[in-house]
Amino acid sequence: MNIPDSIQERVKKEINLFCNHLPEEPNELYEPMRYMLSLGGKNLRPSLLLLTCKMLGGKVNDAIPAAIAMELFHNFTLIHDDVTDNSPLRRGKPTVYKKWNLNVALLSGDALLIKSYQELNKTKAKYLPVIFQVFNDAALKVCEGQQFDMNYEIKNKVTIVDYLNMISMKTAALFSASMGMGAMLAGASKSDINKMKVTGESLGMLFQLKDDMLDVFGESAQTGKQIGGDIIQDKKTFLLLKALELAKGKTKAELNSLIGSTKISPKEKVERVKKIYEKLGVEEIANKQMEMYYSNAKKSLTTIKTKEKDILLALTGALLNRNK
Amino acid sequence: MNIPDSIQERVKKEINLFCNHLPEEPNELYEPMRYMLSLGGKNLRPSLLLLTCKMLGGKVNDAIPAAIAMELFHNFTLIHDDVTDNSPLRRGKPTVYKKWNLNVALLSGDALLIKSYQELNKTKAKYLPVIFQVFNDAALKVCEGQQFDMNYEIKNKVTIVDYLNMISMKTAALFSASMGMGAMLAGASKSDINKMKVTGESLGMLFQLKDDMLDVFGESAQTGKQIGGDIIQDKKTFLLLKALELAKGKTKAELNSLIGSTKISPKEKVERVKKIYEKLGVEEIANKQMEMYYSNAKKSLTTIKTKEKDILLALTGALLNRNK
Repeated sequence: MNIPDSIQERVKKEINLFCNHLPEEPNELYEPMRYMLSLGGKNLRPSLLLLTCKMLGGKVNDAIPAAIAMELFHNFTLIHDDVTDNSPLRRGKPTVYKKWNLNVALLSGDALLIKSYQELNKTKAKYLPVIFQVFNDAALKVCEGQQFDMNYEIKNKVTIVDYLNMISMKTAALFSASMGMGAMLAGASKSDINKMKVTGESLGMLFQLKDDMLDVFGESAQTGKQIGGDIIQDKKTFLLLKALELAKGKTKAELNSLIGSTKISPKEKVERVKKIYEKLGVEEIANKQMEMYYSNAKKSLTTIKTKEKDILLALTGALLNRNK
Repeated sequence: MNIPDSIQERVKKEINLFCNHLPEEPNELYEPMRYMLSLGGKNLRPSLLLLTCKMLGGKVNDAIPAAIAMELFHNFTLIHDDVTDNSPLRRGKPTVYKKWNLNVALLSGDALLIKSYQELNKTKAKYLPVIFQVFNDAALKVCEGQQFDMNYEIKNKVTIVDYLNMISMKTAALFSASMGMGAMLAGASKSDINKMKVTGESLGMLFQLKDDMLDVFGESAQTGKQIGGDIIQDKKTFLLLKALELAKGKTKAELNSLIGSTKISPKEKVERVKKIYEKLGVEEIANKQMEMYYSNAKKSLTTIKTKEKDILLALTGALLNRNK
């Protein structure tokens, strides 16, 4: 994923340290945390945070607590979202909800959220109030985005603008906060902090659109998820909303009949919706939208005075072209 | 409840302000918070925090953020615990889980936990790191206690010591943290902070034992809960564990047959277990245990140099004699 080895290894080392320091008991609280964190996520948010801090001349060590807090927070959302979405698989393995049960997913998720704050509190005192604020604001946005996402599953009229607002909260907020916090912890200027926030927002939007694409056009062996999960759940993704916008006549009628349908098998539903997507060329439209975010990220990075921005640019490109 | 009106009114006012400042949308996220906070809890934790701060010569204003954070955190735990315990009623009204659904209870609970941290971050910067730490440590203990509580429902051998450890985490940790934070925010000495923590711990233990008593011997109209809820759920309370310790022969056999039984109606189960409690005199034993905590609280308060400790002593007595 074009993240420098030194950053990747540092994040992995710190996550391992965190896991090793977790108490043994109560096992039902701490084992799901260790399990979730061992599934091998991309650690994108903490890596972006550390990378941004380093790029702007900060010390990686100063940014470790916030970086780990971000990754823990992200994993907390995954544990709870898998309950809400009734998802069987996460990174190719059973979700906490399926491997244990609802109560374990609920409580170990809560405890992981609190653990993320415990890590955050290791931030140097002079940075703490402002880092804490950015973290809280992003965390709350994630919850709001998740709620809108759930609402949109049953709401009839959802626009592309609604959708983009929703993923801006649910996904891009954490990317934006990660890069903003990285800049803050490097003691960057207000202007550079804002530019990094804007870059992170674009990266997050790009990341989520790619996620939607991989859900339909990806390979389960690569993504570790059930292919077509969004289609089965009638998630109002960019692809579905664009298809609803473009479809006419028989195609529109077919698409509408497929949404919410319980008469056909999930497999057939995924295949038929995918065919409509291909017919309408929504994949290409989504690609163009992603390229717009790529170019936005590039633009905001260009104005920041640092030599090392090529690493972030390469990472943005890698997010665009990833297959998992 | 013997809390001075000025403190009670201030807490209510601040909780109202918090509710009034919540966004409207997404409604499913914020309406359950307003609902939960409007049910009229006792606001014990924030009141204790403010009272302790005031008693030790601090400014109530300095302690407001931590006090409100405590109450929000407590309400977050109630929303999620009601899911875990499948509880229909809370303060005489439907629980969030029952009034809405699982997903709403899950997500609005998460968001309320994050809101509690947002309030906490309004604490003066010089106190923030240490207040944040006490808050996190207590929050995590509450989760651990809740997990042990769940484990004990299905575990065969649970001792009174296990139980007391569990409620020390699940309940007393927040009382202890509230009084400790109140002392910290008054700039009290380490010794006085510790004494207040110890007092809070005793108050919390007393409070939880009384809760167990009211579950069995209270009046639903007063407590706002289903009477015998703990018995129906086979909760290993002080009363049940003491009864299991004391029962012999036929009584022991009957009690064992009632635990986990699904053959009889909940109503019959509650009545029969209650009769056994009365026969064995466990109510008196529990009363003695509570009086021990009362006397411990008194003892640790006695050594603190402040004129106003009578208010806290009266409050401790009121906790012992409450009927709701």
